Amino acid sequence: MEIALKEAEAAFLEGEIPVGAVVVIENTIIAKAYNQTERLTDVSAHAEMMAITAATGFLGAKYLTQARLYVTLEPCIMCAGALAWAQLGTLIYGATDERRGFARLKENILHPKTKIITNILKEDCEAILKKFFKELR
Amino acid sequence: MEIALKEAEAAFLEGEIPVGAVVVIENTIIAKAYNQTERLTDVSAHAEMMAITAATGFLGAKYLTQARLYVTLEPCIMCAGALAWAQLGTLIYGATDERRGFARLKENILHPKTKIITNILKEDCEAILKKFFKELR
Repeated sequence: MEIALKEAEAAFLEGEIPVGAVVVIENTIIAKAYNQTERLTDVSAHAEMMAITAATGFLGAKYLTQARLYVTLEPCIMCAGALAWAQLGTLIYGATDERRGFARLKENILHPKTKIITNILKEDCEAILKKFFKELR
Repeated sequence: MEIALKEAEAAFLEGEIPVGAVVVIENTIIAKAYNQTERLTDVSAHAEMMAITAATGFLGAKYLTQARLYVTLEPCIMCAGALAWAQLGTLIYGATDERRGFARLKENILHPKTKIITNILKEDCEAILKKFFKELR
C-alpha cells in the first residue's frame, strides 16, 4: 500500500484526484497506476482500471484470480465491475468512499470469490485526498 | 442502432462477443466501437467503455450530458458505472442481459438524469449474440 500511496502522490503532483493502485502476484508488482481522468479527459481512467489493463496486458491473460490489488481509495462501481470481470483474488483498500464506493450497494458486485481487506494505511490514504480537496478550494 | 449492429458484426467477425456501441450528439456520430476484450486481453475493453473514451477524447471534455449512447446489449455494471461518471444524456439499448446487466441491481447506478430507452431492434441485437454463442458450442 505504501507503493500505491506513492502512485497517489504522483497523481497529486499532476493535479489529479490522488488515488493510486498496485497489482501484486505473490511478491512481485506486475502493475501500478494512478488516476489520470483529467490528463486523459476520460472518466474511465481511474487508477484501478489502468492497473487492471496493465496487469492483464503484462500477464497476457484476462483474469487476475491470483492477484492482489492494493488501492488507496475504495473502488467506485465502475472499477468494482471491472474487478469482477477480472475475477480479482484479493482487493485491499485504504480509505473508504461513502458517496461513490461500491460497498454502499446492497448487492456484492465483486466476484463472489474476491477477498476484501479494508482500512490498510487508511489515515495516510485519507490524508492525501483531504490535502488535495483542501488545496482545490 | 443499425450502426451499432454493424459494429457488433465487426466484433463477431473477429471472434469477439458481438456487442457494438455508437455515441451520437444531435445527428452526428462522434464515436463507435465494438467489444475487443479478447484481442486486447482486457476485460474492460467493452464496446461502451471504448465508445465513451473515444467520444470524450473527440469532445475534449469528460461529460456526455448531451449525448445518446446506442448499444446492442444492456450495459454491465462496469459500463453503467462509467456512463454514470460521464453523466450520459440518454442510454438506448437493444437486447437485455438478465445475468450481467446493470438493471438487475436494486439501485439505479446510472446518473439520475440519464434517460433510458430499451428494446430498440431487440430481436436483431439478440440474434447476433445467439448466433455467436451457438457457433462457439
